[in-house]
Amino acid sequence: MNTDKLRLYLVTDDTLAGGRLFEKVTAAVKGGVSMVQLREKNCTTAEFVSKGLRLKELLTPYGVPLIINDRVDVALAVGADGVHIGQSDMPCKIARKLLGPDKIIGLSVESMEDVRSANLEDADYIGISPVFATPTKTDTAAPFGLAGLARAVEESVHPAVAIGGINLSNAGEIMACGAAGIAVVSAILCSPDPFAAANKLLEITGNDK
Amino acid sequence: MNTDKLRLYLVTDDTLAGGRLFEKVTAAVKGGVSMVQLREKNCTTAEFVSKGLRLKELLTPYGVPLIINDRVDVALAVGADGVHIGQSDMPCKIARKLLGPDKIIGLSVESMEDVRSANLEDADYIGISPVFATPTKTDTAAPFGLAGLARAVEESVHPAVAIGGINLSNAGEIMACGAAGIAVVSAILCSPDPFAAANKLLEITGNDK
Repeated sequence: MNTDKLRLYLVTDDTLAGGRLFEKVTAAVKGGVSMVQLREKNCTTAEFVSKGLRLKELLTPYGVPLIINDRVDVALAVGADGVHIGQSDMPCKIARKLLGPDKIIGLSVESMEDVRSANLEDADYIGISPVFATPTKTDTAAPFGLAGLARAVEESVHPAVAIGGINLSNAGEIMACGAAGIAVVSAILCSPDPFAAANKLLEITGNDK
Repeated sequence: MNTDKLRLYLVTDDTLAGGRLFEKVTAAVKGGVSMVQLREKNCTTAEFVSKGLRLKELLTPYGVPLIINDRVDVALAVGADGVHIGQSDMPCKIARKLLGPDKIIGLSVESMEDVRSANLEDADYIGISPVFATPTKTDTAAPFGLAGLARAVEESVHPAVAIGGINLSNAGEIMACGAAGIAVVSAILCSPDPFAAANKLLEITGNDK
C-alpha cells in the first residue's frame, strides 16, 4: 500500500462524535486525514453496512481509503479498501483469502510478541496499540510507551501506525520513533474544530517525515 | 435447496448447551437433526470462526448443512453451507452477491409484512419467528400463533420453517400448518438426551409430511 495514507489515520467512534460522525469526518478529511477506519462495536450488521456505504461515498472523492474494523463481510459489502483486524478478530490468513491480494489489511499488535507474529502475516501495516494510556478504549493492553514504540517499529517488517492517547502534544515524538503515521480518535472527533485539529496534526506528522 | 433439510433444524445456543455444545450437536445429529445453525451473539470473530470450523468438520460426514447466523464473513471463512439473516442483519441482496448462487440463505420474518418483503428476495427459506412465546430469545416480535403461521406459510413463496417455543407437544400442529420443518433450540439442547429428543421430533415432523 501507499504508506503516505498511514500518516494521519482517523478511527471513528460514534459516541465520541456526538451523533455528528459524518460531518466531523468530512471536516477532518478536508483538514488532511489520509485514511479512515469505521469502528463499530455495538450496532447491527445492517446499520454497520449502511454507515459504511455512506462513509465510502463520502471518502471516495477525496481519495481517502476506508478501512472497516473487524468485519470482512461489511468491508466486502460496502466496497471498502480494507479491514483492520484485532487479535480476537478474523485470522489474517482467512481475511486475506476472502479479500484478495489488493485490499489493505491492518493488524493490531499489543505486545512485542504480536509484532513478531504479525511479521509472518500478509498484512499491509500494523497498528501499535496503545502507545499511551487512552480513555477511548478500556480493554487495552499495557501501553508501549515511546521506547517500546521505537523497538516495535524497528522489529516490524510492516509499516507501523501508532494509536492510543496521541494528540498534538506528543505526535511529533511518535513520528520521531519511526512510525509511518498516527491513528487518532478523540484528538479529532472531540475537537470543536475537526478541520483545524486534523490540519495541525498533519503539519506535525508531515514535518517529521 | 433440498427442503428435506429444513425438517428438523437445530439452532445453537452455547449457554443453553451448558458448555457441551459439540457433544450435544453430535448426539442430536445422530438422532436426526437435518440442518444446524451456529448462532453466536457474544463472542469474538476469532471464536466464532473457530467454533464454525469445528462444527463444519463435525457435520460434514453426516451430510448435515451448517448455517451461520448473520455473519457472511464467518460463513465464507469456515466453508459453511449458508447464512441465516435477521431483519437487522446484512441485506439479503448483498449477502447473495457475497455468497454466490449456490449457498443457502434463510431470512427471519417477524410479521406478515416481512413475509411479503421476503417474497421479493433471492432466499432459500424463511424462518417464521416466533410462532409461540419463547424464553430463548427475549427481543422477539409478537408471536404468530398457529393461525398466523398457516397464513404466513400460505403467503410465502419460499419454504418456511417455524421457530419459537416449539417442542414435542406442538410440533405436530406446526407441521399441519404447512411448514417445511421446525427450528428448535431448547427442545434439543436443554434435553438430558439430545439424541432421543431429536429422534422423537423427527418422528413427528416426518409423519406430518
